[in-house]
Amino acid sequence: MATLAVPETIPSASEDAEQIWKACKGWGTDETAIITILAHRDATQRKIIRLAFEEQYKENLIMRLESELSGDLERAVYLWIFDPVEREAIIANIAVKKNIDYQAIIEIACVNSPKELLVVKEEYHDRYKRSLEEDIAVHTVGDFRQACTSEFTYRYDGDETDTAVVRLEAKTFHDAIKSQTFNHNEVIRILSTRSKAQLCATFNYYKDEYGIPITKALTSESPNEFALALRMAIRCIVSPQKYFAKVLQNAVGKAGTDEDALTRVIVMRAEKDLKVIKEMFHKRTNATLKHAVGTETCGHYNSFLLALVGN
Amino acid sequence: MATLAVPETIPSASEDAEQIWKACKGWGTDETAIITILAHRDATQRKIIRLAFEEQYKENLIMRLESELSGDLERAVYLWIFDPVEREAIIANIAVKKNIDYQAIIEIACVNSPKELLVVKEEYHDRYKRSLEEDIAVHTVGDFRQACTSEFTYRYDGDETDTAVVRLEAKTFHDAIKSQTFNHNEVIRILSTRSKAQLCATFNYYKDEYGIPITKALTSESPNEFALALRMAIRCIVSPQKYFAKVLQNAVGKAGTDEDALTRVIVMRAEKDLKVIKEMFHKRTNATLKHAVGTETCGHYNSFLLALVGN
Repeated sequence: MATLAVPETIPSASEDAEQIWKACKGWGTDETAIITILAHRDATQRKIIRLAFEEQYKENLIMRLESELSGDLERAVYLWIFDPVEREAIIANIAVKKNIDYQAIIEIACVNSPKELLVVKEEYHDRYKRSLEEDIAVHTVGDFRQACTSEFTYRYDGDETDTAVVRLEAKTFHDAIKSQTFNHNEVIRILSTRSKAQLCATFNYYKDEYGIPITKALTSESPNEFALALRMAIRCIVSPQKYFAKVLQNAVGKAGTDEDALTRVIVMRAEKDLKVIKEMFHKRTNATLKHAVGTETCGHYNSFLLALVGN
Repeated sequence: MATLAVPETIPSASEDAEQIWKACKGWGTDETAIITILAHRDATQRKIIRLAFEEQYKENLIMRLESELSGDLERAVYLWIFDPVEREAIIANIAVKKNIDYQAIIEIACVNSPKELLVVKEEYHDRYKRSLEEDIAVHTVGDFRQACTSEFTYRYDGDETDTAVVRLEAKTFHDAIKSQTFNHNEVIRILSTRSKAQLCATFNYYKDEYGIPITKALTSESPNEFALALRMAIRCIVSPQKYFAKVLQNAVGKAGTDEDALTRVIVMRAEKDLKVIKEMFHKRTNATLKHAVGTETCGHYNSFLLALVGN
């Protein structure tokens, strides 16, 4: 389901490193050469190229690329070159430092499986010498703090569901939405501690029982920021692909393109499920993602994203 | 630092299983034989004995012992026979079902290292098909819910401390204590997300700056249940051994002995640091733990605890 296209035969990491070094040497940078290599290597291959570059040229490849590239291309290549776990730890840290980008935080907390999330948290510890929850808690207050830090709970990952709990908790959501008390402690408790399978069963029951999807019910009246965040978390839990297709639609649909969101989704999902997200994007918008990226971006940044989006 | 005494040469697991089976056979039970074996085998040996028993007699050893033993001895042997990780998951579950035993929950959350706690949480998932935080959240409300579930955050485990943060957060504690607002969001945030090294530095600074240990300051006026829980968490973080010595002191010091606490601490720590806890107990009370257990308990329960406490 990935869109990343790695050629059947590729040069050795040492040769790739040499080509990148040549592309960086002297005045100017050969962005095309860099993109042709890096946008067509998987996470393991990129890691080996980084090591080979460091070994051969006694220089950190990431820092070299940061000095050679600029703007949206620099940011995109910077995120891409890491493996998925390193990348999500970095994205989380950027989100925290932005004081605070809730969307990126909620995506990481709610899209990953409990085991995946745990590895991201460990990477965060190693990299920043603090815990991710610690940094989020410092940069948030009140309901948002409680909701955001709670979402990093180590959920149960099994498929079992408890029907009695489903009924009870669907009603809890319904009562909270009816009285517009989204920050209700019980809402946060359920959303942050129940397993994804249990939550999906609850949301399905909600739709059957109350005749409206919970994500619509949450925002049927003029929604506040907190209700929107809850809806986002639910979407990430229920169907990450559908959620990311919507993020891409928003990113290219605005008057000005949201390059940060466009980069984040394409880079994060190219090695995972971007193929499915592309199909959903197509269904939603009647346009291909390739076409949308083609019209909304330009230059080497455009080439890089298109290489990741694939054909 | 453990008190568990395993003989230099021990029978094979198969022979141990046979002796336990003989001790259980027919009318009556030979508790002494069971204690002589199980109280002198380490976690790995006990696990192999369980497997050998099941293999040889097609019967679950734990269920057999539950039907053969009773009262405090049954509960103590039941907890002892598991390995430390299984045991803590079981203790946590018993604490949750007691609706809710905060002390046992706080001990597990705050005494274990982040990595140890993670393994306990994984065992809890496997065993109960729910997450520990999920069960705690269901059985708690308000400040206690927030505080208890937060304490299970995956903290950073390094030794680095940030002096500026130390000063700032010692003052936050001081202000909260001064205004008797222990449930202040910032207090819970600091206590539940900061690394243990950072917290210890903060509490040391607190003592130097304000002339009183934070644990004393917390309870200097008539403390409510929440302030007592905070103090317990701080003690577990700063010095688990000192904390457990105090729990033992309370358990044997009351008019009626608190067998649950006595069992929990001795069983949990016999393979870890009970030797240090015993010394601290001696210093605090001028009596040996052996003597205290000897006078406060009787029968086979007494023999079992004394075997674990060691000489």
